[in-house]
Amino acid sequence: MASLSTLTNPISETCFFLPKSCDLGFSRSKIAPFARSNIFKNSNVSSEGQCSSTFDVPLLSCSEVTERMRTSRESHKAKQLYLAMYSSVSGGITIDPAAMVIPMDDHMVHRGHGVFDTAAIVNGYLYELDQHLDRFVGSATMAKIQIPFDRESIRQILIRTVSVSECKNGSLRYWVSAGPGDFQLSPSGCHRAALYAIVIKDQSPPDHSGIRVVTSSIPIKPPQFAVMKSVNYLPNVLSKMEAEENDAYAAIWLDSDGLVAEGPNMNVAFVTKEKELLMPCFDKILGGCTAKRVAVLAANLVKEGKLRGIRVENVSVEDGKRADEMMLIGSGVHVRSVVQWDEEVIGNGREGPVTQALLNLLLEDMKSGPPTVRVHVPY
Amino acid sequence: MASLSTLTNPISETCFFLPKSCDLGFSRSKIAPFARSNIFKNSNVSSEGQCSSTFDVPLLSCSEVTERMRTSRESHKAKQLYLAMYSSVSGGITIDPAAMVIPMDDHMVHRGHGVFDTAAIVNGYLYELDQHLDRFVGSATMAKIQIPFDRESIRQILIRTVSVSECKNGSLRYWVSAGPGDFQLSPSGCHRAALYAIVIKDQSPPDHSGIRVVTSSIPIKPPQFAVMKSVNYLPNVLSKMEAEENDAYAAIWLDSDGLVAEGPNMNVAFVTKEKELLMPCFDKILGGCTAKRVAVLAANLVKEGKLRGIRVENVSVEDGKRADEMMLIGSGVHVRSVVQWDEEVIGNGREGPVTQALLNLLLEDMKSGPPTVRVHVPY
Ligand SMILES: Cc1ncc(COP(=O)(O)O)c(C=O)c1O
Ligand SMILES: Cc1ncc(COP(=O)(O)O)c(C=O)c1O
Repeated sequence: MASLSTLTNPISETCFFLPKSCDLGFSRSKIAPFARSNIFKNSNVSSEGQCSSTFDVPLLSCSEVTERMRTSRESHKAKQLYLAMYSSVSGGITIDPAAMVIPMDDHMVHRGHGVFDTAAIVNGYLYELDQHLDRFVGSATMAKIQIPFDRESIRQILIRTVSVSECKNGSLRYWVSAGPGDFQLSPSGCHRAALYAIVIKDQSPPDHSGIRVVTSSIPIKPPQFAVMKSVNYLPNVLSKMEAEENDAYAAIWLDSDGLVAEGPNMNVAFVTKEKELLMPCFDKILGGCTAKRVAVLAANLVKEGKLRGIRVENVSVEDGKRADEMMLIGSGVHVRSVVQWDEEVIGNGREGPVTQALLNLLLEDMKSGPPTVRVHVPY
Repeated sequence: MASLSTLTNPISETCFFLPKSCDLGFSRSKIAPFARSNIFKNSNVSSEGQCSSTFDVPLLSCSEVTERMRTSRESHKAKQLYLAMYSSVSGGITIDPAAMVIPMDDHMVHRGHGVFDTAAIVNGYLYELDQHLDRFVGSATMAKIQIPFDRESIRQILIRTVSVSECKNGSLRYWVSAGPGDFQLSPSGCHRAALYAIVIKDQSPPDHSGIRVVTSSIPIKPPQFAVMKSVNYLPNVLSKMEAEENDAYAAIWLDSDGLVAEGPNMNVAFVTKEKELLMPCFDKILGGCTAKRVAVLAANLVKEGKLRGIRVENVSVEDGKRADEMMLIGSGVHVRSVVQWDEEVIGNGREGPVTQALLNLLLEDMKSGPPTVRVHVPY
């Protein structure tokens, strides 16, 4: 925890100072309330009356807030670049990262009343945009958010945002929320649903090497919430953190019956000893666009005789752990070999050949698949 | 759903227009990408190739985004006034509603990785600030967020924010999030936890009349998530919406054993036929600061002989529905009589005398309780 004095940039201290002495801070003397750029220096007094530190909390104008947010963003070595953002609240697209903000009173911010989805940008094409958009609209319906524009208009706005960003390789993320309004629990005070979209360039190269997973101890969401992609991802975040604390890439959820469910932002699949591709049913987990596409692409391996068949059905932990191959599938992770699950080594402990073949089919599809999965962006 | 053309304000159209004809929008012609204030007019073409409408998506500078957000806020008849906001990202307090924003890449916005709490402002005092602050710090720990300042510094910032707002009656809300960083699921790319606080003046007078509740059909959160006040409130929102659709004020959750749990943003309590105040245990629900305070204040009624005792224990639906009185308790709702739960009339169907007495004790406590529950704001 940093001390408060490191919080604010040293800006010109124009007027009012409270004494740094231990007078319980914030003296009763009247402060010109709406003065701009004032710094209030306060002695930081604990409830026992002890001084602990001194800090500044300046009063800022709107442009000062924006400039400080810009400085704060620029001061960090970013793993990602934000190239463009659309917001229906402003009604336009900006390429200025300092303006890539959302109103504090948006129901998505303070109540999690929003849903999201994504699409990869590959060589100037949006991969599986329509599949993700269908899920997005479905998630909105389940979250009882009436989308602010029709599906086709949303699609055009998303394509336009990517176009303005000039991003040829990266990702697009978008949200629909109940919108700004008031801070109540009910969305009845929200004026209108809001759409936000951002185009991101990831600076780190993709990694497809084999990884380790653990079983998640964080409770999985009830099915009604697991099947929609709302921003209520705290369980997913804690599950991911649990994995990282255990030197694993992801933590795998089991459902209420102890069956294999999914990872925190990806699906799982297996290759059985009988060379069948096995995926858990999608009724209590998120219907992964990538997993569904991989299941289609896997038909090529069946034709080639590398797979005997494809099954979507309940998977027990026992069956999963004794599979020949295990993989994670998702738009972020692509297809990635799991070589160890908890203490169990999967197969021979190396990236499996079917997993590798499926990854290659997916990467190929992203680059040169049919028009149904690749939407051209007119830059 | 509004048409897209109503989305943007008519601003000066300086350059580029795409034809309004049905040419699949977004023509391939090159657009000066970073030009400011351009409006892109696009024909909105459905996937079947049909024109559905025409809309504008202008490219905006940072100050245009801010001004449009200001206009958007001002165009709505607000039930609430936002008087001041603190943000650790900007490192200061602003009184300009257009600057009351949060970065889109804050982990709270896109993953719900944030917790919050509240405190009422009554006649220039913060009611139960320390009790709420304790819960806030506890929620942060459970959400694995390391608070950016120590508890006492946060307390001072909150008091300072209320002071700057000059609000004498209203409410304070505050959030701690994993902070801005990147759009990944893991918070490892978040630079630093962020603190936000806002002071709100509610324009509608409080209503303490008896209300109707229903049993919620929305699944309750697992206990690990129910005991912390994270912004993952989508189940709570949907539960509140379900109530409103059924002309009820709130929907009551039962826990996994079918026992009475809580409302979407309040606790419940009962007065039994034997004149005991009965509250469900706090192990699978949010520990309500108000309910705990009411339990303390209720001792006065025991002394006066209006109550026989106070019990915190498991409550079955049957016991709840046949109680003499039922009430909702929370910092927003205060203490409010429930006169009907589903089809069951509670007691004689009118506001109960013990509930009324507890409401009066609470209102009295808010106005003139001891220093442990009332923190003076030095304006
Ligand atoms: C919980 C969860 N499951 C599965 C997935 C995989 O879905 P997709 O392949 O569409 O990215 C995601 C991805 O976002 C997810 O968040
Ligand atoms: C789920 C839930 N339960 C109970 C409460 C009541 O808590 P408090 O009395 O501290 O407002 C709240 C209030 O915010 C809540 O959100």
